[in-house]
Amino acid sequence: MRVPLLVNDFLRRAAKLYATKTAIVDGDRRFTYADFERRTNQLGHALLALGVQKGDRVCILSPNSHFFLESYFGVTQVGAALVPLNYRLTAADHQYIIDHAGVSVMLVDYEYTAMIDQIRSKLPAVRHWIVAQDEGAAPDGWTAWEELIAQHPGTATPAVDVDEDDIATINYTSGTTARPKGVMMTHRNCYINAYNFIAHLRVTHDDVELWTLPMFHANGWGGPFAITAMGATHVVLRAVQDAAIYRLIEQERVTFACMAPAVLSTILNYPDRAGHAITTRPRFCVAGAPPPAAFVERLERELGWEFIQIYGLTETAPLITVSHADHNCPGDDWQARSRAGVEVIGTDIQVFDEAGHPVPKDGVSIGEVCARSNVVLKGYWRQPDETAAAIHDGYFHTGDLAVWDEHANIHIVDRKKDVIISGGENISSPEVEGALYTHPAVLECAVIGVPSERWGETPKALIVLRAGMTATEAEIIEFSRGQLAHFKCPTSVEFVEALPRTATGKLQKFVLRNQYWGEGRRVG
Amino acid sequence: MRVPLLVNDFLRRAAKLYATKTAIVDGDRRFTYADFERRTNQLGHALLALGVQKGDRVCILSPNSHFFLESYFGVTQVGAALVPLNYRLTAADHQYIIDHAGVSVMLVDYEYTAMIDQIRSKLPAVRHWIVAQDEGAAPDGWTAWEELIAQHPGTATPAVDVDEDDIATINYTSGTTARPKGVMMTHRNCYINAYNFIAHLRVTHDDVELWTLPMFHANGWGGPFAITAMGATHVVLRAVQDAAIYRLIEQERVTFACMAPAVLSTILNYPDRAGHAITTRPRFCVAGAPPPAAFVERLERELGWEFIQIYGLTETAPLITVSHADHNCPGDDWQARSRAGVEVIGTDIQVFDEAGHPVPKDGVSIGEVCARSNVVLKGYWRQPDETAAAIHDGYFHTGDLAVWDEHANIHIVDRKKDVIISGGENISSPEVEGALYTHPAVLECAVIGVPSERWGETPKALIVLRAGMTATEAEIIEFSRGQLAHFKCPTSVEFVEALPRTATGKLQKFVLRNQYWGEGRRVG
Repeated sequence: MRVPLLVNDFLRRAAKLYATKTAIVDGDRRFTYADFERRTNQLGHALLALGVQKGDRVCILSPNSHFFLESYFGVTQVGAALVPLNYRLTAADHQYIIDHAGVSVMLVDYEYTAMIDQIRSKLPAVRHWIVAQDEGAAPDGWTAWEELIAQHPGTATPAVDVDEDDIATINYTSGTTARPKGVMMTHRNCYINAYNFIAHLRVTHDDVELWTLPMFHANGWGGPFAITAMGATHVVLRAVQDAAIYRLIEQERVTFACMAPAVLSTILNYPDRAGHAITTRPRFCVAGAPPPAAFVERLERELGWEFIQIYGLTETAPLITVSHADHNCPGDDWQARSRAGVEVIGTDIQVFDEAGHPVPKDGVSIGEVCARSNVVLKGYWRQPDETAAAIHDGYFHTGDLAVWDEHANIHIVDRKKDVIISGGENISSPEVEGALYTHPAVLECAVIGVPSERWGETPKALIVLRAGMTATEAEIIEFSRGQLAHFKCPTSVEFVEALPRTATGKLQKFVLRNQYWGEGRRVG
Repeated sequence: MRVPLLVNDFLRRAAKLYATKTAIVDGDRRFTYADFERRTNQLGHALLALGVQKGDRVCILSPNSHFFLESYFGVTQVGAALVPLNYRLTAADHQYIIDHAGVSVMLVDYEYTAMIDQIRSKLPAVRHWIVAQDEGAAPDGWTAWEELIAQHPGTATPAVDVDEDDIATINYTSGTTARPKGVMMTHRNCYINAYNFIAHLRVTHDDVELWTLPMFHANGWGGPFAITAMGATHVVLRAVQDAAIYRLIEQERVTFACMAPAVLSTILNYPDRAGHAITTRPRFCVAGAPPPAAFVERLERELGWEFIQIYGLTETAPLITVSHADHNCPGDDWQARSRAGVEVIGTDIQVFDEAGHPVPKDGVSIGEVCARSNVVLKGYWRQPDETAAAIHDGYFHTGDLAVWDEHANIHIVDRKKDVIISGGENISSPEVEGALYTHPAVLECAVIGVPSERWGETPKALIVLRAGMTATEAEIIEFSRGQLAHFKCPTSVEFVEALPRTATGKLQKFVLRNQYWGEGRRVG
């Protein structure tokens, strides 16, 4: 028997088996799985009544909230695609995405309605404006979510003929190099990612997840699906704040959390740890640039909690590698544990050279991380050329450069577009930046390749100095030579006021490079 | 991106990531995952050289062994279907299955070649006879597995165009009521079952599974795939023996085992538990009739180990429900924990009445367990009518009768064909048998429905007395009235020498019933 793998089945199961269990804690509000399903069904009926049809796009712009979780299931169960927006973007960014995705219904948290009002007149395709707020009157021109769903039954919505290869969500990338692209995630992509999330992050029905990760970010890595599938509990954190994190871990007995590296740093540096009686041993999963090995050691040794590094991209649902204590990475091998890690089930990860052959597993040879898996995106929304450029020869090409060891443990060294090729040698810009960051006067830095007649290109450092401190170009170059092979050292240094970053905080090196390169070469 | 869900990907991953880790312990032999993959590839090449093509059937008849594990991957990776035989069957049973499945290659453990030699002449379609033995010369007419594979490379076999809906295994049912039927399991069936096995039985890379379950039985419940997928370790137990079980748990630090209820009883009753220094806390998973609640309590309280009950059929890959400590089943609710349990991910389980409506979730109303899931069989091999009879109206009909509670926790009360309907009331034959088993003179018993002019049918007990003990029909009926509602009590009792059972030990009640019923009604 073949039954389509649809994410909605996760909530159906949880509500059937765990009707009276707490599904969501959001501030003062608590929802059982029966509540969660009822509200989701009400949202589904409401969307149908608004004319939403299979294949339509519905946007959500919200910090973490129970509304956000409800939207993941309510929108997809009527066959529409959810488009979660990054709340750190500008109104102009939102306008671009909403227009590009052809969104017909906007679900917007009350903090963001004023921002969206700025661009409403430029979004003629949007037919309905719904504000998510627990209480109070809706702003002018907005329909209150609670009033809308109150008019609809909590019973299941009519069956829609949705296939597992139909789109569940469209997630726009953060655009380090260009306009954001819409990553089409099918139900099957999300479903298999949820299984891998459960298998490799060891989710059980007893888990309590603290939402230290934004729910918009790669579908909250798939947590809305995986945690729900197992009937575990979601504890919503609206904004990352250290005292709130510790209070919730203590009060709600949190066992699990996913986060960006900066949140881990916040947790480690919280001054009042001793003020909390924590009885659980949470598993903390970090994605993005791995934290220093010392962070891993501190988390496990000092706090007694567990560290898991994962790696992936919005385009890969996102989990494709995981790093934790195992046969090849003993518990105290903090360095190996802070790698991107090894491939998850059903995912063939390769590190390919330019000719498409695997580079040696020697920890030194650099290649591009490529993935063949059911978690790889269906394609970019309305960008077939971009899709073909990313998925070819049987693999998705991540654009990330890495080395790997004999156990296929992967360590990301750079973005492909950011690597510096000088005299035929690959130079990892994060490696050079890491060395510069140990200089006491360096607050922020970025290393890029600039044209060189002799070497093709050569490393240049852009540095923001700490307030009240000074350094010269010669000093910085000399300092780097004490730490790095000479061919990796910057040959020029420029002191700047600030570095260009995306809304999610990623360095936009292409902006820097554009100042040094002409048209058409190495321009993001 | 869509990649077929093929079980072979599990071993590919494990060999890539855990090449030097112990994959299999089998007596004195130990195999790393690199060994496991190399030997599997050699077997694949050998089968191709023997002319095995996509869709062909290859049989294995063997107790648990490393050969058996190798066959699960080696046969399927060339696109053939593995047909695991039940070694408790007779030569005539084997002949029927081998012939019905149209097997071309036989893989047979050295203990069973003599038995197969009895039927060789009647199996003209079989072209190759391969004996699995670690050393020694092959018997006449047999090719030694080790000599065969030694001629072939350990590199990957050529890619075969296998789809996830193609057949990976054909598992013959034990035939409680008729000739065995060949259950077609697709790669997708086995793959999704492996994910559920990992998710709900909580398999990690650190697990060490002791094979107290025969590998032929419903594909070892999927353990060959799930344990391999995670890179955990298989510890082969060739024959169930209590001292060997304790020795291996101690020496190999076993963390996990699957078993029939009888094995659990063996483990609980082992006299020399104190003689073993066991440092792990194994999870013991039991399928089949749930053990008494007292067994669960003893395992967890006395031994400090963990109990998990699962339920399923060969036709469902097999896991469809799981019962363990959770929100609805607290750790000390031994009774609830010894139920079949609640549905696994992606599996809609219903308990339907005759009209196809769910029976009330009241723990009393009886209906048939039905399943809608990707783990449900593709169909019965060359028996389309049997397939249509089992899969209709969107569900697979298990033939098992159950009650369920408000949390959808299922308790199997009888086989549909074995339930007794007396005066319009359903009587669970195992319930009546359970009451009779508490009588000191009863060694074995079976309760069946026999014709009754007044009630339609009425319960009759067939009893095997303990050696040296006596009882009368009137005594037994009186005894049962002290324990059961009167309508459930036997109205006649017959004392017999033995009860008819299948090769796997299941009661064949249809044989008993046939003595009392004419043609065409309630005859298995």
